[in-house]
Amino acid sequence: MIIDKLFQNVASKGHVCIGLDTDYEYLPTRFAKTYSHISDALFSFNRLIIDATVDVSACFKVQIAYYEAFGMQGLEAYRKTLSYLRDRKAIIIADVKRGDIAKTAEMYAKAHFSGDFEADFMTINPYMGMDTIAPFLPFIKNDEKGVFVLIRTSNAGAKDIEYLPIDVRQTVGLGLSPNSTMVYKVVGEKLNSLGKEYLGICGFSSLGGVMGCTHADEALEVRQQLDTTFFLIPGYGAQGGRAEDIALYLKNGNGGVVNASRSILLAYKKIENGDDNFNELARNEVIRMRDEIRSKI
Amino acid sequence: MIIDKLFQNVASKGHVCIGLDTDYEYLPTRFAKTYSHISDALFSFNRLIIDATVDVSACFKVQIAYYEAFGMQGLEAYRKTLSYLRDRKAIIIADVKRGDIAKTAEMYAKAHFSGDFEADFMTINPYMGMDTIAPFLPFIKNDEKGVFVLIRTSNAGAKDIEYLPIDVRQTVGLGLSPNSTMVYKVVGEKLNSLGKEYLGICGFSSLGGVMGCTHADEALEVRQQLDTTFFLIPGYGAQGGRAEDIALYLKNGNGGVVNASRSILLAYKKIENGDDNFNELARNEVIRMRDEIRSKI
Repeated sequence: MIIDKLFQNVASKGHVCIGLDTDYEYLPTRFAKTYSHISDALFSFNRLIIDATVDVSACFKVQIAYYEAFGMQGLEAYRKTLSYLRDRKAIIIADVKRGDIAKTAEMYAKAHFSGDFEADFMTINPYMGMDTIAPFLPFIKNDEKGVFVLIRTSNAGAKDIEYLPIDVRQTVGLGLSPNSTMVYKVVGEKLNSLGKEYLGICGFSSLGGVMGCTHADEALEVRQQLDTTFFLIPGYGAQGGRAEDIALYLKNGNGGVVNASRSILLAYKKIENGDDNFNELARNEVIRMRDEIRSKI
Repeated sequence: MIIDKLFQNVASKGHVCIGLDTDYEYLPTRFAKTYSHISDALFSFNRLIIDATVDVSACFKVQIAYYEAFGMQGLEAYRKTLSYLRDRKAIIIADVKRGDIAKTAEMYAKAHFSGDFEADFMTINPYMGMDTIAPFLPFIKNDEKGVFVLIRTSNAGAKDIEYLPIDVRQTVGLGLSPNSTMVYKVVGEKLNSLGKEYLGICGFSSLGGVMGCTHADEALEVRQQLDTTFFLIPGYGAQGGRAEDIALYLKNGNGGVVNASRSILLAYKKIENGDDNFNELARNEVIRMRDEIRSKI
């Protein structure tokens, strides 16, 4: 199970998931100017970041939106970045947040679990229901793949749908626990239950969930109820999540990776004349973050 | 407003939205074999379908999953298909169901409203909240673009989240009407309300919604409450939606387009030796569907 590899990486290399949300504007100006194609500039930047951080991070999350935005050029950079990550034996989370059903979902699975854009995990949006997830299950079972399904995100808008209160009197018969009092709790419970069919030897499932760390008051309850769900955790840093909050979402110090992107990719902007050492400065930030999280467990 | 163009197309050319969910396996074998690159085969098939149907359809919905599945080759076919649709002055709905926030959502808007993959409308998944929609609003206001946000889909799994019952006693103060008793109704109400800032002269908004036609019993209520929302309607045909159901989701015979894909692209399979005339047979099916819907209004 791919989740066992991720679990081992967390244990040996720490909890940091490096978000390669690489906007062209993030590249140091002089560096960017040395490339005549956007695809080469984006890929070369990523390659240097990967080389500098692969031994101190659990995995890489590549946000496809930043590449789609540059059309075919951008997607060529996406393809090459994923290929390079595979060469470096890094674990790849394709942050694509696809959500569709039936044959369309099968096509997304084919797109992101094989061929040019092959990743180890992909993120999924469950709005349309559990049949958005079903087409990915054979890949989890047979092909060492995994998914992270959106449960509770770290943005302010989470209140609009994820936090809507459920009328539990009307959900009797749906097989939900009385704890499923909000939309995100229903989603979490369904996923945790389904995920038990895909447990690794580490005790967590390759069917994981996205769980923002911005609502620390709910963390202990969430961790207890979603007992075998591995978390992809956004919200650290800029969105207000602190290292001590992260610890609440873990179980014996494992069971989650913490995403950070801009704080790593743009670490060079905090240092005078940092442009030429953006990769080393990214590495320093990853190590700082890794150690800060470890110190709170 | 782009919605006025779509409204006019519906009035003059009918309600059919042609779904270019073009799987390579859908191509007639002999036709497919004449191309050495998948991208050329997919694009050439689409081009012939477009030429045969552009005058009898309201718009084209291109499902990107089918192209992503073939990696860079597939996306090259996607790019060329959209470019050709623009040349033919057809209205393009990019069925990408992206859903993300802040800068990531801006990147998706850039990806699908400009450059290689420019479309007129794109579909959006609202699970993460209303901040998944905000980054698209400037494009609606300033750039003749529109979106269709998932409200209630036509798949069986819609019951899992979209139909969850809301505890309305706890939503007091959220500005919702007492009718917002299910997740999809909350989403619909929020969208309809926000959409009123983007009304065309036709009386509908460029901020539209996806509304499956498979729950006809709710159609009148939905149409009444979402009074200015233009619907992209899946579920016709294979999923059980009938022409008489479609009429219930319209308002004075307009305000919605009805998607069909396989029944059109694979019409040739129903006819002996249909392979060589797949485009004409697709046209016949579009006209049949157009006239059937019109006859029930």
